[in-house]
Amino acid sequence: MSINQLRRDPITGNWTIVVQDGKDVDFFRPLQSRRASSEPLNDFCDFCEGHEGETTGEIYALRHSGQKNEPGWRVRVMPERYPVLQIHGELNNRGLGIYDMLDGIGAHELVIATPQHGRRLADLEEPQIVDVLTAYRERTLDLKRDTRFRYILIHESPGEGMGATINHAHGHIIATPITPLRVKEELQNAQDYYQYKERCLFCDVVRQEVDDAQRLVADNGVFAAFCPFASRAAFEVWILPKKHEPFFETNQQLPALAQILKAVLFKLRTVLNDPSYVLAVHSGPNLLAGKERGYWKTLERDFHWHIEIMPRLRGFASFEVGSGFQVLWISPERAAGHLREAAI
Amino acid sequence: MSINQLRRDPITGNWTIVVQDGKDVDFFRPLQSRRASSEPLNDFCDFCEGHEGETTGEIYALRHSGQKNEPGWRVRVMPERYPVLQIHGELNNRGLGIYDMLDGIGAHELVIATPQHGRRLADLEEPQIVDVLTAYRERTLDLKRDTRFRYILIHESPGEGMGATINHAHGHIIATPITPLRVKEELQNAQDYYQYKERCLFCDVVRQEVDDAQRLVADNGVFAAFCPFASRAAFEVWILPKKHEPFFETNQQLPALAQILKAVLFKLRTVLNDPSYVLAVHSGPNLLAGKERGYWKTLERDFHWHIEIMPRLRGFASFEVGSGFQVLWISPERAAGHLREAAI
Repeated sequence: MSINQLRRDPITGNWTIVVQDGKDVDFFRPLQSRRASSEPLNDFCDFCEGHEGETTGEIYALRHSGQKNEPGWRVRVMPERYPVLQIHGELNNRGLGIYDMLDGIGAHELVIATPQHGRRLADLEEPQIVDVLTAYRERTLDLKRDTRFRYILIHESPGEGMGATINHAHGHIIATPITPLRVKEELQNAQDYYQYKERCLFCDVVRQEVDDAQRLVADNGVFAAFCPFASRAAFEVWILPKKHEPFFETNQQLPALAQILKAVLFKLRTVLNDPSYVLAVHSGPNLLAGKERGYWKTLERDFHWHIEIMPRLRGFASFEVGSGFQVLWISPERAAGHLREAAI
Repeated sequence: MSINQLRRDPITGNWTIVVQDGKDVDFFRPLQSRRASSEPLNDFCDFCEGHEGETTGEIYALRHSGQKNEPGWRVRVMPERYPVLQIHGELNNRGLGIYDMLDGIGAHELVIATPQHGRRLADLEEPQIVDVLTAYRERTLDLKRDTRFRYILIHESPGEGMGATINHAHGHIIATPITPLRVKEELQNAQDYYQYKERCLFCDVVRQEVDDAQRLVADNGVFAAFCPFASRAAFEVWILPKKHEPFFETNQQLPALAQILKAVLFKLRTVLNDPSYVLAVHSGPNLLAGKERGYWKTLERDFHWHIEIMPRLRGFASFEVGSGFQVLWISPERAAGHLREAAI
């Protein structure tokens, strides 16, 4: 199998991972024929307890009993069987005429959130969610020791995946030698704001959202959750620590995070009839990997980690893709009102 | 009805149009239950010839016979009945604490591409496509006289719309008081490149794609079509004039454009089983509306208009939304190969 490529578009600034050995046939199926979200992929699920032998080898686990690759785990991390980025090799940063590319070096790990099939993150007890967050934290800290990796991205998209649906709660950790464009824009905007105001942009946003309370979904003292003022999707919710903190993985308040995360996911489920969604953790990039860059020098001061949750509803990414701006058919204030009222 | 709002997110830089009187109920339906693309919305289609009385009043038309708002037209333009932006009023650019917002002032017009129901752009004869492009050009020139509008965006998304599907070929023209973030990034990257290389970024890209030919889909001497090196979606195709030209609306070669556009759409249909897609024209912004901005001063030198076409296939915007980068399961080289081989 040849190594995938990380390619940069000089016009949009966007990075794309180009798979070299993809199969053609998968594409000739239009969007509409996707599987329903609740349909399990297999009757026999590799992520379930007791099937440890059928997965790639365990990298990390939290256990109440048993040995590595045996039952007895609460959370389990392993390499993705078909990773889009591979762990071994050099980056081979190079040009191709006007274009830039790298070999597709990185890490792609799966975090299995529970030994039980058919549950989502919102179904888990808070201590179990703390376990999941702990696994994310420990793997991020470990991956950040590798100076090839500029960014570690944690994300989940239950109900809809990369072509397949697995009805067993899990998340992805992806380490990349580049910083994703979306995070880069946040870093740049945060730096510009600090230079102008001498305050953290995110701290100011949190303060205004908590004071104003119109778009607030939850506030447990340590974390605040709200629908962003210019949400990109209806019922989008962000969760931020109320105190300034650049990195998710150094957070010491995971029980409070588990509490608010469960509350938000539960509310979204209640109000939106169990939608599929995309959840991404935006933490600061790897300080060991990119000190030379402009925003790297001040990112601990400028940047503030957060979680972005985007429900995938009707009309998602249709008008928006073409126009470059979003149309929200329900205001963030009304969406937040529905979510505040929903029982936990 | 209250005026919609254009809101800017200070963290992501993104603009969102927030509809003030949207109905809640539409959202509580998950993504999976969308209508199939081929299902017509109404048995009785307002866009068909003979139903002119049921639409909003005609703004522009190309006719072989008849008067305004009567049959006999080849292409017809009218205001969107439920516009997300309204034409009358001041922008009221203002702050709300840390946030920026404008009143939702703009224009939203529909271009009906043919009097006949059930046809897509790819089905039309080339002279009819020239008529459609002429309507886009004339409306853009007219809207650019309004100094409130920084940007005029032309886009089509057949097969899937904002919640509804209308099986009658049409496009949208949207005039906005802001430049969409995606276009702004292109303007900025083009300016940076020109300052460094003293050449147009797009001209260099076209030259390399034509010479290299691996990703080339079509070349008719005046325009080139290719799958971008770091495509954001499988089978993404861009069409660019081979000679430097900043604005679509001053182009004098619409027959050549119609020829290559029809060829590309027909090839996409053949290879991908009639996919829904999003087509957007990225022309330079309105020179009359924003001279003070950095990239405005040199945009005629830096920028090069183009058409972006993104088929909406399986897996679109799922992994990608969370991670901020795309995964392409088929390389642009292989996608272009399939498209080159497809008959017209």
